[in-house]
Amino acid sequence: MAAVTRVCVAGAGTIGSLLAGYLARVADVSVLTRREAHARALNEQGLRVSGRGDFTVRVRASQDPAELDAELVIVACKGNDLEPLARRLAGSFAGATVMTVLNGLGAEDVVGAHGDWPLLSSVTFMSGTRHSDTHVEYILDTATWIGPYRDTTPADAQRVVDLIVDAGLQAEAFDDLRPAQWSKLIFNATVNSVAALTGLPHDPHFAGEPLGPLVHALVDEGKATAAAAGVELWEDPWEMNVLATQRGHAHRPSMLEDVEAKRPTEIDLITGALVREAARTNVPVPLQSALYALVKGKEASYS
Amino acid sequence: MAAVTRVCVAGAGTIGSLLAGYLARVADVSVLTRREAHARALNEQGLRVSGRGDFTVRVRASQDPAELDAELVIVACKGNDLEPLARRLAGSFAGATVMTVLNGLGAEDVVGAHGDWPLLSSVTFMSGTRHSDTHVEYILDTATWIGPYRDTTPADAQRVVDLIVDAGLQAEAFDDLRPAQWSKLIFNATVNSVAALTGLPHDPHFAGEPLGPLVHALVDEGKATAAAAGVELWEDPWEMNVLATQRGHAHRPSMLEDVEAKRPTEIDLITGALVREAARTNVPVPLQSALYALVKGKEASYS
Repeated sequence: MAAVTRVCVAGAGTIGSLLAGYLARVADVSVLTRREAHARALNEQGLRVSGRGDFTVRVRASQDPAELDAELVIVACKGNDLEPLARRLAGSFAGATVMTVLNGLGAEDVVGAHGDWPLLSSVTFMSGTRHSDTHVEYILDTATWIGPYRDTTPADAQRVVDLIVDAGLQAEAFDDLRPAQWSKLIFNATVNSVAALTGLPHDPHFAGEPLGPLVHALVDEGKATAAAAGVELWEDPWEMNVLATQRGHAHRPSMLEDVEAKRPTEIDLITGALVREAARTNVPVPLQSALYALVKGKEASYS
Repeated sequence: MAAVTRVCVAGAGTIGSLLAGYLARVADVSVLTRREAHARALNEQGLRVSGRGDFTVRVRASQDPAELDAELVIVACKGNDLEPLARRLAGSFAGATVMTVLNGLGAEDVVGAHGDWPLLSSVTFMSGTRHSDTHVEYILDTATWIGPYRDTTPADAQRVVDLIVDAGLQAEAFDDLRPAQWSKLIFNATVNSVAALTGLPHDPHFAGEPLGPLVHALVDEGKATAAAAGVELWEDPWEMNVLATQRGHAHRPSMLEDVEAKRPTEIDLITGALVREAARTNVPVPLQSALYALVKGKEASYS
């Protein structure tokens, strides 16, 4: 990968906006939006970051990928928006490296099917609240983990990590991201669905009564699936859960926000990916399957 | 049991109000209320039944059990209100037979601990909506099942059934209610908690996609528990589920209404009873236990 001076962030939801806002302090940042009004607002007003940050940056935004160029394209969107976004990237950004930042598994392959860009894989633990097209609040100052995926090296991952750290965010490079990606997948599949079904933020109920034993059993199913897939986990998702509930501020998982707003959730990309991988490797996951069905039922209740 | 000419309904929620309203057409009915204003309203305005019925009856109501007398006392309340209500009955209604109409298991023993009345057991499938202290709407015209429990005979159960049928409702007598009670327990434990967690009324999603396989597996855990307790089920709860979802009108289970109103649910009396019985007989019920924990989590989210 060439030196990175120009970054295009494709998808400007919460995570995309946070990355665009911070990276614009150290690089030339453009934003690929879905809506024209969004691009116009960003071009006219810039992008404001509040919360843990407090600044406004200039970014170049467009609905049209042909108008944008970059050495690094960061694909940051919700799972249900990935396929149409990847389709729009096809034929553009020749020579760029593309990095996906999505929950679940398999985003790299969805993007990789639409072009022969070198690919980096990443997961992020950052969280924030998107107040408008041009204003995002940074809430949880936690790391983004990056590793090589296709035609890239650990040094490429490190180069992007250095850029993100220069910008004031946390990041870490991995030779192989899968152990970290699976740790987060198991954590996410469990915490997001339990939060979405109970209405609880990720608080101490998840580590003690009444939910601790269930969360532990859900994590155990995930660990058995990872083991069957030959993945040695980077962090124990149960310990990640316990630690996260000991922070003062109880995080509201995105799937909880989705069901409260009656939006489609990422259940197919997160718990669905785990359940499908378990079926492939013949690992019984009755509890993860139950939560998958219940969240699908919750989505069915919207109409 | 003596001939029944006077009935006292203790607890005037939806089911209690429906029974009081209909029985007042063929017997002298009194109502034991928790609130004084409720008793006053009933004494002044009578009790109106709408929906499948359309009439208003006179009833005598009081907060004070000493002011009321009856050959039959029907205890109809939510599970969480049972212990305090049973305590209020202690020392009153000498010579009366007491019949409980509650979800779950164990209501008879809670009442029986407070007096040596002969006891009848019952479960009901009726449903309605309580619009005010003096107005209840009758919605599902389905049966109440009655059987002997302590110092009563099948003939006693039949006498109460005859009275209820005379009044215009459906009822059926059983020599042993446990097979029917357990069928309803398993049905209720499953359908109520799935509805409360997904927000769905009891509609075809429970028999097909996405919830059918989960509902089936939950019912199987209940069947295994019944078998270990030596109970041969009266009806297959899975078939009860399929049939119920084929009615035109999708029923809203009471636990769904409870969580939407952020009220305590009957989870401890229903799913909790099943899970405790499974623990006693060493039957693994991981899915019922998971739903129990999730509904407890939902209750914890109210505050």
